Amino acid sequence: MEHILWKNDELILMDQRKLPGETAFVTCKTPDDVAAAIRNMVVRGAPAIGITAAYGLAMSAILKRDFDADCQLLLDSRPTAVNLRWAVERMRDCRNKNHGKSDFFVAEAIEIHREDIEMNRRMGEFGASLFSKPVTILTHCNAGALATGGYGTALGVIRSLFNHGKLKEVFADETRPYLQGARLTAFELAKAGIPHRVITDNSAGYFMAKGEIDAVITGADRVAANGDTANKIGTMMLAVLARHFEIPFYIAAPWSTFDLSLASGVGIPIEERGRDEVAFINGKSIVPDNSPVAHIGFDVTPGNLISGFVTEKGILHPPFRTDSD
Amino acid sequence: MEHILWKNDELILMDQRKLPGETAFVTCKTPDDVAAAIRNMVVRGAPAIGITAAYGLAMSAILKRDFDADCQLLLDSRPTAVNLRWAVERMRDCRNKNHGKSDFFVAEAIEIHREDIEMNRRMGEFGASLFSKPVTILTHCNAGALATGGYGTALGVIRSLFNHGKLKEVFADETRPYLQGARLTAFELAKAGIPHRVITDNSAGYFMAKGEIDAVITGADRVAANGDTANKIGTMMLAVLARHFEIPFYIAAPWSTFDLSLASGVGIPIEERGRDEVAFINGKSIVPDNSPVAHIGFDVTPGNLISGFVTEKGILHPPFRTDSD
Repeated sequence: MEHILWKNDELILMDQRKLPGETAFVTCKTPDDVAAAIRNMVVRGAPAIGITAAYGLAMSAILKRDFDADCQLLLDSRPTAVNLRWAVERMRDCRNKNHGKSDFFVAEAIEIHREDIEMNRRMGEFGASLFSKPVTILTHCNAGALATGGYGTALGVIRSLFNHGKLKEVFADETRPYLQGARLTAFELAKAGIPHRVITDNSAGYFMAKGEIDAVITGADRVAANGDTANKIGTMMLAVLARHFEIPFYIAAPWSTFDLSLASGVGIPIEERGRDEVAFINGKSIVPDNSPVAHIGFDVTPGNLISGFVTEKGILHPPFRTDSD
Repeated sequence: MEHILWKNDELILMDQRKLPGETAFVTCKTPDDVAAAIRNMVVRGAPAIGITAAYGLAMSAILKRDFDADCQLLLDSRPTAVNLRWAVERMRDCRNKNHGKSDFFVAEAIEIHREDIEMNRRMGEFGASLFSKPVTILTHCNAGALATGGYGTALGVIRSLFNHGKLKEVFADETRPYLQGARLTAFELAKAGIPHRVITDNSAGYFMAKGEIDAVITGADRVAANGDTANKIGTMMLAVLARHFEIPFYIAAPWSTFDLSLASGVGIPIEERGRDEVAFINGKSIVPDNSPVAHIGFDVTPGNLISGFVTEKGILHPPFRTDSD
């Protein structure tokens, strides 16, 4: 089941907001549809957003729209994940090389998609090599097939561990407010037959203190040159706890997530989203009508709390340089 | 608006599961009703559970039931909060002194209730004296009027700070799975006109890192002699983070929450509750049907992560001894 499918010059996206209860699809016919799908979180996850944007620009070329305007439209759809910018830049390069022939754009988007899956598989193997004995892994949000072109980053490492017989169990943080862990990670793990338990975000420390968690692995939305890493809100709390309980904490992300233009995490734009996404669950408010809500989408984990970065090039450590490329 | 009301030999409890959307009440006519209300979280919060159990035993005396059996029934209703045991023991003492006259039992339960409110007010003043300038406080779960006889423990300190003009704002963790922070703490704060924002549990670290939080204050369900403290799941994570970010972390709890029979937190029974309380929100599942869920109700914060214990006797520090009484 493809969750990002290019067909007849249209992009069919699985509506991740409705999983696991319902498998529905959204068809994007214009770059505006694509930008809206990213903004409204039909599709989410840094690598998946990049791939989706690339297809959006292929559409722009086919429809002979203002390519630069569509680049900006897509760049503005979500601020934190740098893969979006990376994919847009790659499609811009493609335009410069092929003088605007739309077939090349489509081929490039498909290639970005294909490469992502291949990189995830490579990352999975590198990640699995970090452990010699069967381990229990805690993960946050969804850094799985649904967050990428397929296979997954953090969940790719988990899949590879499972395939090598080196996985005991996965703890999946439910990950409020969007519940990507409870809804999407659990969905992928159940489908793959990987043993897991869903926990509330505030339970992670309990299982760390009990000695039940051997390592934490999450994805990333943007990594600065010094290793500071933006990822789904709550990730930094896990890294602080992991350090306290002396548990290794890994980030799994493709090189397209690394933003070497930023010396540190200070410059990473952190998305704030609307009140209702926190205040309403399953259509009903959980907060008094007159109570304000702060909805922060991401936090920044200091590089010095991260034990290693699992990438398609191997396990990396900061400071990162362009020549790591 | 009373949330624990004794009237015509019956106990009328505000149904805290339905707040803030609906103000409903549950009438308990027997100790069995009372035990069920505690078990099903119609009423929750360590001091409130103790008060409720005391009224349940007054009922037992009026109905001339087996008093010891009802003591056990109530003790078994929830395992972690020691105030329940404290209140049951106090009602047992009352029986021994008054030879079973039911009026005395009722008077004793009312006295336990009255004293609790008075202690909360005293605690509030002691807590407020910890700060000289206006502060922003983070709290977890609900340690407010609804969790006690009235006024609140941690929220009592917040009320006193507000009354003294020393409160900037409160961050209220929503506190999954029961959302006591989003539903109950926000409800109390909105009612009192105290500035606040509700946040997801996984956002607390973000605001600490930004320097927006001056102190963390929570309630407690049981404190061991060395200061190890059981409280709502997630509390320990906040204490670890507060230490990391060099923010003071306080517990506010009446002396009835201290269990000096336990040298450390290792002996505190931690309640595990059912899958559905995590998996279903507002009547709809957020987890795939075949995904297991772990639902842990409490965690233990090591005493050495706690900056001080706000009690009705003043600010205390471990080790605690009976003569602190």
